Amino acid sequence: MNLKRFFNPRSVAIIGVSEHENKVGHLVAKNMMNQGYKGEMYFIHPSGAEILGKKTLKSLNEINGSLDLVVMAVPSVVAVPYLDEVAAKGCRNVVMFAAGFGETHSPEGLKMEEELQKKLKEHDITLLGPNCIGYINTHIGVNATFFSHVAPKGNIGIISQSGALGTAFLDYVAAKTHVGLSLFASLGNKSVLNESDCLDYLLDDPNTEVIGMYLEDVIDGTEFLRKLHETTQKKPVVILKSGKTKEGSKAAQSHTGSMAGDDEVFDAALRQAGALRAESYAEFEMLLKLYSLDAVPANKNILVLSNAGGMGVLLTDELISQELHLVMVSETTTKKLAKAFEDTKKITVHNPIDLLGDASAFDYKKAINLTMEEKDIGAIIVLLTPQANTEILETAHVLRDVYHAFKYKPIYPIFMGKDSVSEAHKYLEQEGIASFRYFSPLPKALRKIIDAKQSAQSKILEVSPPDYTLPVQSHIRDVQLLFAENKGKKFLSQHDGLSLLSWSGISVAKTYLAVSPEDLTTVVKEEGFPLVAKIASDTITHKTEVKGVITGITVMEELQNAFDSMRAVGGRGSGCYVQKQYSGHELIVGSKNDSTFGTIVLVGLGGIYAELLHEVIELVYPFSYEQFQIALEKSKLIKLTKEFRNMPPIDAKKLYDIALRVGLLVDTFEQIKEIDINPLIASGDTLVAVDGRVILAD
Amino acid sequence: MNLKRFFNPRSVAIIGVSEHENKVGHLVAKNMMNQGYKGEMYFIHPSGAEILGKKTLKSLNEINGSLDLVVMAVPSVVAVPYLDEVAAKGCRNVVMFAAGFGETHSPEGLKMEEELQKKLKEHDITLLGPNCIGYINTHIGVNATFFSHVAPKGNIGIISQSGALGTAFLDYVAAKTHVGLSLFASLGNKSVLNESDCLDYLLDDPNTEVIGMYLEDVIDGTEFLRKLHETTQKKPVVILKSGKTKEGSKAAQSHTGSMAGDDEVFDAALRQAGALRAESYAEFEMLLKLYSLDAVPANKNILVLSNAGGMGVLLTDELISQELHLVMVSETTTKKLAKAFEDTKKITVHNPIDLLGDASAFDYKKAINLTMEEKDIGAIIVLLTPQANTEILETAHVLRDVYHAFKYKPIYPIFMGKDSVSEAHKYLEQEGIASFRYFSPLPKALRKIIDAKQSAQSKILEVSPPDYTLPVQSHIRDVQLLFAENKGKKFLSQHDGLSLLSWSGISVAKTYLAVSPEDLTTVVKEEGFPLVAKIASDTITHKTEVKGVITGITVMEELQNAFDSMRAVGGRGSGCYVQKQYSGHELIVGSKNDSTFGTIVLVGLGGIYAELLHEVIELVYPFSYEQFQIALEKSKLIKLTKEFRNMPPIDAKKLYDIALRVGLLVDTFEQIKEIDINPLIASGDTLVAVDGRVILAD
Repeated sequence: MNLKRFFNPRSVAIIGVSEHENKVGHLVAKNMMNQGYKGEMYFIHPSGAEILGKKTLKSLNEINGSLDLVVMAVPSVVAVPYLDEVAAKGCRNVVMFAAGFGETHSPEGLKMEEELQKKLKEHDITLLGPNCIGYINTHIGVNATFFSHVAPKGNIGIISQSGALGTAFLDYVAAKTHVGLSLFASLGNKSVLNESDCLDYLLDDPNTEVIGMYLEDVIDGTEFLRKLHETTQKKPVVILKSGKTKEGSKAAQSHTGSMAGDDEVFDAALRQAGALRAESYAEFEMLLKLYSLDAVPANKNILVLSNAGGMGVLLTDELISQELHLVMVSETTTKKLAKAFEDTKKITVHNPIDLLGDASAFDYKKAINLTMEEKDIGAIIVLLTPQANTEILETAHVLRDVYHAFKYKPIYPIFMGKDSVSEAHKYLEQEGIASFRYFSPLPKALRKIIDAKQSAQSKILEVSPPDYTLPVQSHIRDVQLLFAENKGKKFLSQHDGLSLLSWSGISVAKTYLAVSPEDLTTVVKEEGFPLVAKIASDTITHKTEVKGVITGITVMEELQNAFDSMRAVGGRGSGCYVQKQYSGHELIVGSKNDSTFGTIVLVGLGGIYAELLHEVIELVYPFSYEQFQIALEKSKLIKLTKEFRNMPPIDAKKLYDIALRVGLLVDTFEQIKEIDINPLIASGDTLVAVDGRVILAD
Repeated sequence: MNLKRFFNPRSVAIIGVSEHENKVGHLVAKNMMNQGYKGEMYFIHPSGAEILGKKTLKSLNEINGSLDLVVMAVPSVVAVPYLDEVAAKGCRNVVMFAAGFGETHSPEGLKMEEELQKKLKEHDITLLGPNCIGYINTHIGVNATFFSHVAPKGNIGIISQSGALGTAFLDYVAAKTHVGLSLFASLGNKSVLNESDCLDYLLDDPNTEVIGMYLEDVIDGTEFLRKLHETTQKKPVVILKSGKTKEGSKAAQSHTGSMAGDDEVFDAALRQAGALRAESYAEFEMLLKLYSLDAVPANKNILVLSNAGGMGVLLTDELISQELHLVMVSETTTKKLAKAFEDTKKITVHNPIDLLGDASAFDYKKAINLTMEEKDIGAIIVLLTPQANTEILETAHVLRDVYHAFKYKPIYPIFMGKDSVSEAHKYLEQEGIASFRYFSPLPKALRKIIDAKQSAQSKILEVSPPDYTLPVQSHIRDVQLLFAENKGKKFLSQHDGLSLLSWSGISVAKTYLAVSPEDLTTVVKEEGFPLVAKIASDTITHKTEVKGVITGITVMEELQNAFDSMRAVGGRGSGCYVQKQYSGHELIVGSKNDSTFGTIVLVGLGGIYAELLHEVIELVYPFSYEQFQIALEKSKLIKLTKEFRNMPPIDAKKLYDIALRVGLLVDTFEQIKEIDINPLIASGDTLVAVDGRVILAD
């Protein structure tokens, strides 16, 4: 959908511009004028009166010439029928504020919704809203909202499913000198235009350098992720999403297969696509500000200068907790620093570099100039507390000069306190330098920025490569037969499940169904010991808990006992499964369908505490090995791919391989609802599925 | 130590009041005057000149009458010898600013430190510092610091190991109307006065209603915790401690020369004592402000009113994440609300109660008045974003009236945005109501306040009760014999370790040492199957990893094989341990000595992933069952004391019992360095130690 004309109209008509100052139509008309819109503008009102110094028209018919956008500031009962008139005028772009549609869940609302949909389709209208607060394009002076502010021009594009969030954000940027908006779009009910459409516009909008989104849901997850990754490769995208907890509790309810709550999937998907997820509105604002001012660290190496020992220590804790590195300055620089200060005082040349409580602006200058030339400094944090003789404003001047002299290497001034540092903050802001009163949010923000960059630039997979698709394709008849045989069933037997996995190229434990003592002899002859016996019941999910799994069988008598005990449960003629016992880490690899993002794969720690400890990573299928590795690095599982307690490190590439194949199965066959390999026994490059549960679609 | 006179001197002499405006002595003299000190004040300077309108004295000898406090604003080389003169004048209370002692780690510094210590002992001097920034007692007008501010009077007492933190905090409160200091004390090198001494003073100081502490280390952990718990039962204590990370504690060391202990232990100890640990300086400020204004929730039930749907959803997420409850208003109130708004609009009476974007001040008033009478509301959060017609200041007025009308039930106004809401924030502050621009920090702060209250009021144990001490005392000869036999060894054999545990009243698995096939027959006769065989080597720590543990032995042949294979490793004449196999959750219970807090007990999830997942709770011995439960509730282990995957819930009281006994052993016998029961198999009320490692002290 090309929204160039929608967001850059040459002419705009506002329907419902009344003389009442508090009415939406009036507010919008005023905003358009104050924002400085230069195109043709028409106010429509049945009175035909003069409003805001401009004669209103009684209807669209009175307009000569073409019309690019209609803004409807009238109630739903008026707005919906009016669409006929809009279409008749040849206009297809509409902003609709009115509420009272599907979101009310009332009979009247649903009826209104239906009528709206009919008209939209009939006239092929591109609609923003309804139940929205409009949009702003500062670069051409469109302010088709009823905000109480004119929006300052800038490089931040905002797409918001909440109007109120826009209000708060606009109030924030209005108070700033160097931070402003390129575009603001309020999505409302998303009857036509949704987050992906607006993102697509901002991707190519030359005025937008960073994008912020507030979302409550996503219409088409797959399309959104594709568009999102395309965007993050060019511009950062910061996303604030609500609904963390409702889904969280749903996740706790269900079991291993659906261990991932929807919100966790959302989180994983955003990360995979290279977007940043803000944890709070405050972080959302902060990240956008940092990007907008291009205050982005080059790498993880942070240098800290401080006049406050204790605060420096606290900051160090927070930097290290975020896995950022404290730069240790070279010996040469250390010597230079010692020499530069030898006449006045003994400074501590560790990192943080403590310039002591009496640090002058000149002390800061000397120290920064000497350290700025160190290689590989990603950013400098300058901590200042207002002590007796602290030259607060002068230090701010120094930082500004250094910032320019060193070609805009990021400097983050953290000037703590309140009134004493206000002027300095104001000055730094005017100079376009992001400064802070507290240090806490900064380390996490820097870390997120660095991580997002890595994810944004990571290789992506559009589809699984042939070596993944071939094995299962070569067994396609077997697979189809399997589904045909199991039609109407809820899940596959363990035997069939493992077969399916093996056809997809996953190593599975050879499973023997023993129904007689002779069968046991055969197994032992072929596999030797140790063995595992499992109850041959497909209705028992958690076999361990009913003692349906006996491990560590090392002699024939024990095998016979196991067989007997399981037969005692299963009844006459029943038997048990027998497998070779593998040793290694117990993992879970699963895949299922997420209502928003499609096929999801999860890899986690197995065993009975899997649910309790919930150490899992999630990925949206398909995913590249690089993306898999990035996710792994964020979890404790990464430690198992290294030497851990004398156990052979798990081959990460092999684990990726299995995760992708499981995803491929769920993604390819609509007959499958969910797959869980639990456990996958992993030791070095031997990864074997010993139990697999395949849940079939209804 | 009674510090009443120290912090409330009737007369003060400042040594080193020069005419230079930037010199410390001059600044202190000015601060004393500006803070309005009414007692006798003497400025000492060799020149005898008039400074700040007051004649300086050349020495303390010129003072007639007694002297309660001497403030030394001179370098260390002058200050230390000067102590003789102070003592000669009959004064024992000294504040010393000078740096250059032990904290420098230099030969000169260490020598100076030694001399200082000698003089302090010789004259029995109560010293604050050295290397400190002094103290302030606003209620009698003492400001013996070189801060650049006069401190506003209030109810917050601050004890800080960093002067700079004081600077920032003072700047913060100076800009506030209703928040101020009672006392500020900078600890510096803590040569005499430490955190426990100052805490002891603040505990009984009637002007102090809340205490904030910044710590890098603690001198006497046991004394500190005792004093802390005593204090938290009367007043809240908020603690900011650096050195969370290894790098942070290294930075702290180079800052004040302090050695930070294990941070996790510190965290657990503070919680146990009912203090709040602030995660950041920003949170430290916020918590102190909330307590200072008595904005403390009565319980976990929170009501949210909002004019911003999206923000309300985000806030809900954060409240629920902190396990706070959203109040659902009663049916009666719901009806009243619906009726009150029926003429104007349809509001959503869930929680958050969404008053919609056009909410007027009157709408807020109506809604609050109707809901405030609901039972069991712990606090009300009022969310506001500046929308087109929002009556921002008027709404602030409404909140102030309601706040007074409802007898100060906590109301937290969160007015988002910047310039539009500034005036309202200023007004609320003047009215002594804590208001916020962002909602994120609030839910966590409220949760911490509620938790701390619970811990502060929890029962404590001074010593273990007789039923814990009796079993081990009745075996005291066996214990002594055991230590005698093992003198010089690094640890006890498994057999001896389990014996020691059993003498303390802990159930242990009966362990048979099998050295012949006949021994195996005996075990089976006595214990039956299943059995576990373990290599009888006391030098192997992680038995599992060397296949030194064979579980699930159910037949004789298997037992024989296990015996043979372990003998093959152990050599001729060696054997193996055999135990009954218990089933249940695998836990770890351990105890060790912490350099700061003494005996520490930890309880965690066992098995090979214990190290990876680190799901543990820690407690300082001795601890009450109530304290144990509170710690358990904060960890995932709590789930195992409830129905979990069909396994019998672990009896928490029994687990407490074992944890306390293990702590008792380490605390009682200096011969023991560390005990680890790993695993303790726990199922229902059967908790059995199957392997115990007792490391002996050197």
